[in-house]
Amino acid sequence: MTKSKIPKPAIERLCTLYRFLDMCEEEGTTCISSAQIEKQLHIGSHNVRKDISYLNLSCSGSGGYNIKKLKSQIAAQLGFTQPQNICIVGLGRLGTAILAHERIAESEYNLAAGFDSNINKLETIRTRVPVFPSYEIESVVRQMNITLAIIAVPADAAQSVADKLIGAGIRGIVNFAPVVIKTGKSGVFINNVDILGKLNLLTALLKANSSEIYQ
Amino acid sequence: MTKSKIPKPAIERLCTLYRFLDMCEEEGTTCISSAQIEKQLHIGSHNVRKDISYLNLSCSGSGGYNIKKLKSQIAAQLGFTQPQNICIVGLGRLGTAILAHERIAESEYNLAAGFDSNINKLETIRTRVPVFPSYEIESVVRQMNITLAIIAVPADAAQSVADKLIGAGIRGIVNFAPVVIKTGKSGVFINNVDILGKLNLLTALLKANSSEIYQ
Repeated sequence: MTKSKIPKPAIERLCTLYRFLDMCEEEGTTCISSAQIEKQLHIGSHNVRKDISYLNLSCSGSGGYNIKKLKSQIAAQLGFTQPQNICIVGLGRLGTAILAHERIAESEYNLAAGFDSNINKLETIRTRVPVFPSYEIESVVRQMNITLAIIAVPADAAQSVADKLIGAGIRGIVNFAPVVIKTGKSGVFINNVDILGKLNLLTALLKANSSEIYQ
Repeated sequence: MTKSKIPKPAIERLCTLYRFLDMCEEEGTTCISSAQIEKQLHIGSHNVRKDISYLNLSCSGSGGYNIKKLKSQIAAQLGFTQPQNICIVGLGRLGTAILAHERIAESEYNLAAGFDSNINKLETIRTRVPVFPSYEIESVVRQMNITLAIIAVPADAAQSVADKLIGAGIRGIVNFAPVVIKTGKSGVFINNVDILGKLNLLTALLKANSSEIYQ
């Protein structure tokens, strides 16, 4: 068989599927069909089957996919099996909400450090995660071998924080600041989670869905 | 010319481009080339030109695109010109951080209502946005003609909140709760912004980029 890379849209769908299967497993479900996935996630069952075909999973027959097996195969293929150290920069309302995130602690991601430029604020934060002043970003990221970062600082600080993180070797950033971060370095992935961008995307998809976007 | 729908990946890139152009405009830039967009956003200039070609924009010559014109054309084609009422459900740390979002007030989205199930909490929230107890979601959403919603409630409440919102006519949801929301209704778009999902996506893209994902 010819080797073929998994296309980006398939990777995105498999990530959503992975989180969904995690939920199903928690609810005690052991088996799911592509038709059920289609119904619950609104991903066409044809796409579901195609995405899963990239995983080299042995078919589990007419009863559907074994959830545990499918999850572990997605994890293996997409790289979720290796624990990674992550950090948060910006410990305001959003940053501290993420520090308290119910599920990160149980995941393969280890929240290794939090940073804020306000040193007085650091003393008031109650968390098990070690917190540092922002000027220590570069040394701490290197020392702790942190590979992914979450940015939750105000808009005007986001780019300089991103530059520091990338300079220290960070490979991926989830950016909650309401700006589009420029990378200038290949091999670094930025996921902009700005709420306005997400609202725009929903608006555009709804308009496209009502078949009004044509040229 | 044959009519052709804008594909979803192009819509996603155009949304990112729109927010980026907004930033450029604020910084006083008036003109940008596809090569500059490629360098700053890491979207291939071929894709940039293809995406923009869906907009029926008259070419602005070798000096690049006129940012103001390009922005207004994206806004017109993707449906950002019409003001929309939006709401937030869940006014904890994350929800109140979004209530205070620096840019929503200047955008085409009108934050018309906030909801929380804790009535005592509602009294302590300082915001210009009208806030209501969650049991009023259905009536308020209908009355105020709210079309998009942001969910910032804990995981175990997210699905029932989504069901209420969709039942009241909401067409799009940005979901910050760490669960995958099931819709069960076509024509409704859910954008799951769970941080774990985003970390998974970055991990998978980094692995794919280092050319390890093959079958």
